[in-house]
Amino acid sequence: MTRASVAVGPDLLALDREAQDLLFRAARTANTFTDEPVTDAQVAAIHDLVRYGPTALNGQPLRVLLVRSAPARARLLPHVSAGNRAKTAAAPLVAVLAADVDFHHRLPELFPHRPEAKDWLADRAERVAQARFNATLQAGYFLLGVRAAGLAAGPMAGFDAAGVQGEFFPDGRHQVLLLVNIGRPGPDAWHDRLPRLAAGEVIRTL
Amino acid sequence: MTRASVAVGPDLLALDREAQDLLFRAARTANTFTDEPVTDAQVAAIHDLVRYGPTALNGQPLRVLLVRSAPARARLLPHVSAGNRAKTAAAPLVAVLAADVDFHHRLPELFPHRPEAKDWLADRAERVAQARFNATLQAGYFLLGVRAAGLAAGPMAGFDAAGVQGEFFPDGRHQVLLLVNIGRPGPDAWHDRLPRLAAGEVIRTL
Repeated sequence: MTRASVAVGPDLLALDREAQDLLFRAARTANTFTDEPVTDAQVAAIHDLVRYGPTALNGQPLRVLLVRSAPARARLLPHVSAGNRAKTAAAPLVAVLAADVDFHHRLPELFPHRPEAKDWLADRAERVAQARFNATLQAGYFLLGVRAAGLAAGPMAGFDAAGVQGEFFPDGRHQVLLLVNIGRPGPDAWHDRLPRLAAGEVIRTL
Repeated sequence: MTRASVAVGPDLLALDREAQDLLFRAARTANTFTDEPVTDAQVAAIHDLVRYGPTALNGQPLRVLLVRSAPARARLLPHVSAGNRAKTAAAPLVAVLAADVDFHHRLPELFPHRPEAKDWLADRAERVAQARFNATLQAGYFLLGVRAAGLAAGPMAGFDAAGVQGEFFPDGRHQVLLLVNIGRPGPDAWHDRLPRLAAGEVIRTL
């Protein structure tokens, strides 16, 4: 059997190659953006796609605060690390991804066949852990959703989470997880692709 | 302008509709599976796709233990909640998703332009939090990667994480995050789709 006749990775997938490239292989974290706005309709389309991603008890704890206006951005920037500030100031849109730690109030609607599920989460520490975990899974779906819209995402961990929380979520009900710049990639938007771990370094079979 | 001429959600996306359905809109969490095996080549193809998803400092802390053999499954099942046990016993493959909390040892290779990044994570508590957060983002990519392979994923939070860790990761270096059954959906693989939150319930713009 010649090498060309063996199915290789991309061809073993049901997802078409163009979609593989759009979401993963050609997609890159952007550090610069054009001035083209990201519209509310685009964000709604992203949400309408990624909201179908799975979460435990269908709880959907992710909440998204979009920072677009100059006054809102002026409130955000002081809490962003110095190295991330210029690109966050220039991105057409910045999404603040947060977990609603009181998401269990919605479970009687979201998980209607077990309305008592709400009471399984009476303990706050357990609930916070579940909210953060499932909202982080949803953050993964969201980043791919931004790419599905043909846009570049620039996720950033370098910010003061307590500061952003105090500024935008003073209710104590939300915990900030990640900032994401969103837009069309600008000039020199990224460096060379960094190395990825091989399957043998990540996967073990028993 | 008539309603039909207004671009609606799915058409505002660059991702083709078939891919949208495969990954999100038609994809469902499966509770039953056929006997068709999931091959190592399929798993390698999933990894080769999702490994390009972004992580902080390119750290890639997710590790995947695949439970396939009868002896390995017998070690796993006692730690799975009663309600999840039968489907976990019957799934062709079970992935145990874990975070390597000492992932920083690889940063000099994975983030070579800042080899000192390893030292930023000298504090274990901070490193565990980063490992768990980024591995959970990667878990989101992985679930969509399973779907990209044309397979159904059955993520499960109902298990004893400490028990699974003690059984399969006694080194103390890995923290178990999620179990995922993988295979082709079997008869009556799912119930009706549960409700999803609307954009107005999730997104706020400033």
